[in-house]
Amino acid sequence: MINQDIVAGIDIGGTNTAYGLIDHTGKTLYSSSIKTNSDEGAISFFKRLADEINKALSLIPEKTILTGIGIGAPNANYYTSTIENPPNLNWGYVDVKKIMSEYFDVPLVITNDANAAALGEMKFGAAKNMKDFIVITLGTGLGSGIVSGGQLIYGHDGMAGEIGHTIVFYGGRECGCGRKGCLETYVSATGICRTALEFLSNYQDASELRKFTKETLTSKDIFTAAKKGDSIALRAFDFTCRILGFKLADSVAHTSPEAIFLTGGLANAGELIFDSTKRYMEENLLFSYKNKVKLLPSGLDNNYAAILGAAALVTSL
Amino acid sequence: MINQDIVAGIDIGGTNTAYGLIDHTGKTLYSSSIKTNSDEGAISFFKRLADEINKALSLIPEKTILTGIGIGAPNANYYTSTIENPPNLNWGYVDVKKIMSEYFDVPLVITNDANAAALGEMKFGAAKNMKDFIVITLGTGLGSGIVSGGQLIYGHDGMAGEIGHTIVFYGGRECGCGRKGCLETYVSATGICRTALEFLSNYQDASELRKFTKETLTSKDIFTAAKKGDSIALRAFDFTCRILGFKLADSVAHTSPEAIFLTGGLANAGELIFDSTKRYMEENLLFSYKNKVKLLPSGLDNNYAAILGAAALVTSL
Repeated sequence: MINQDIVAGIDIGGTNTAYGLIDHTGKTLYSSSIKTNSDEGAISFFKRLADEINKALSLIPEKTILTGIGIGAPNANYYTSTIENPPNLNWGYVDVKKIMSEYFDVPLVITNDANAAALGEMKFGAAKNMKDFIVITLGTGLGSGIVSGGQLIYGHDGMAGEIGHTIVFYGGRECGCGRKGCLETYVSATGICRTALEFLSNYQDASELRKFTKETLTSKDIFTAAKKGDSIALRAFDFTCRILGFKLADSVAHTSPEAIFLTGGLANAGELIFDSTKRYMEENLLFSYKNKVKLLPSGLDNNYAAILGAAALVTSL
Repeated sequence: MINQDIVAGIDIGGTNTAYGLIDHTGKTLYSSSIKTNSDEGAISFFKRLADEINKALSLIPEKTILTGIGIGAPNANYYTSTIENPPNLNWGYVDVKKIMSEYFDVPLVITNDANAAALGEMKFGAAKNMKDFIVITLGTGLGSGIVSGGQLIYGHDGMAGEIGHTIVFYGGRECGCGRKGCLETYVSATGICRTALEFLSNYQDASELRKFTKETLTSKDIFTAAKKGDSIALRAFDFTCRILGFKLADSVAHTSPEAIFLTGGLANAGELIFDSTKRYMEENLLFSYKNKVKLLPSGLDNNYAAILGAAALVTSL
C-alpha cells in the first residue's frame, strides 16, 4: 500500500492556534488547537506547535507522509515566509521558515489568514469552479483575499488584499492601524459594536442592548437582539450592511469578481448580513456590474475552514 | 530575407481612431488616424478602418507579415471581442471579431483603452520589469488597467479595472454612468474643470479663469493659469490631487502595486499632478504600504502610446 500524502494546515490567531492534518480530498484526518500565548515568544511557541504536530502525525492510523506545511497568520508575508509585527502578538519580526525548518524537512508556505481563506474556498469550498472572487473575513477586523484569473493576488510585496483598510469616511473612526475611517472600524465584529453603542446614544428607542457596556457588548448580543426585532440592533445591522455594500461596489470596480464570499463570525448572522449587503451593493454598482456578482457564504465547514485554507497554500496537495 | 512579423495597433476614441503598424521591438513603422464619426455605424466604420490598414500595409517598404490586430476601445470586452454600448458612439452592441474577420485572417484581440495602455507600458514602456502595477489614464474620464502577478486583471466578465467609477463622495457630483460621486467626476480633464468652476463660485480670488464659461474652459487653461500662480487654478489642482491620492490609497490596499502610472492629458501637468498626488497618497496609505509605491509617468511616447498598447494585446508580438 502506498503511503498517503498529507499536509499540515495551521491557523495562527491572537488567542488560539488551530492545526490539522489534511489529505488531498480536503478531509481533515486530525485537528486540534493550542493557546497562542502572546507573551511567550515566537521560538518557544513554534517549538510547542511542532511537538504537537509530530504527536498528531504519530496518532493518525492511516499510512501517511507529510509533504508540506501551510500557515495562515496575521501580517504574514508570502514572499519572505515571515510574520512582521503581528498586531496581537509580541513577536516582532519572525522568520517562520527558518524556525520551522529545524523541525520539519518539507516545504512551508505562509500567508495572511484571509488569503488562506480564499485559497481554501478555491480548493475545497464553494469557489472550486471560480477564477475571480473575493473572500471577506468578518472577525475582530475585516480581512480580505482577492483571487483574479485563478491566482491569489499577493502584490509586489506579498501584502495585497487589505480591503479592511480602505477608507469609508475621511477623518472617521479611529482604527487600530493608526489612521481614521477604515472599513473595518465599521464592518467587523468590533465595528458593529461601536455602531450599536453610537446608536444607543443617538436614538431614544427602548433596547435590550442598553444593559451592556462598551466592555461587555459583543456582536452576538446584537445579533440575538436583532432577531427579536430590537430596533437599535436592526439599525446597527442595516448601517453595517450599507457601509459594506457601498465599499464592496468599489472592490468590484477593481477586479470584477464572479462572487464575494462573506465568512467569519459576523457572517453567521445569515440573511441579516447577506440580504441587505447585497441590496446596498447593487444600489452602488456601476451599471456594467449590476446583477452579476454573487454574495455567498463559505462552502467550508466553519470548524475546519481556517486550517483547510492554510493547507490549501501547499500546492502539492 | 525572412519577412518581419508586425502587428496592427488600433485605438478607437470617441472622436478619432489612431492606428499603427508595430514591429516586435515596439517600433512604429507606420501610424495615422481617421475620424471615428459617431453616427456612421460600426459596419461602415470598420470597413473604412480596414481599407486604411490595408493601404498602410502596402505603403511600408519593409518585408512584413501582419500577424495580429490589437484594439483598445471604450467598453470593449476581452472575452467576447465585442464593444458594448460605448458611451460616445451610437454603435450599440458590436461583434468586432466577426466584422474584422471579413477583412483580415489574423488573430484579433480587443480590450478597453486603459487596459491596453497597461499592457503597452508592460511590453514597451516603463513597466517592462514590473509584475504589479496600475495605469491610470486621465483623459475626458478616468480609466484604469490593473496588472497583478504579471497578468492584466480582466475579471470574470472581462470588464475589470473601472477605478474611475469607485465612489469618492456618496451623493456627490453626477457622473455620466448615471450614479453620483464617481472618482472621474473629480479627477479627469472634465473633473478638474468642474472643480475650477465650483471654486470660481466659492472663492473671491482674482483669477484669469473668470473669463471662461462652462463651455469654453479646458483643463489646459487651468494648467496654464496654475503655472502662472493663479490661486483658483492652483486650488483646483490641489483638490484634484487630494481626491486622487486618497482613492489611490484604496487601490493600493487591493493589489499592492510596485508603481502607479499616471498617463493621458492631465498627466502632462507634470509635477503639479505628480508631487501633490504622491504626498496625499502617502498620507492615506496603510503603514505597511507607505514609501513603497512609486507614482510614475508613462515611459511611452505620447504620440504612439495608445496604438502601442493596443498592439501589445497581441501575444505573438
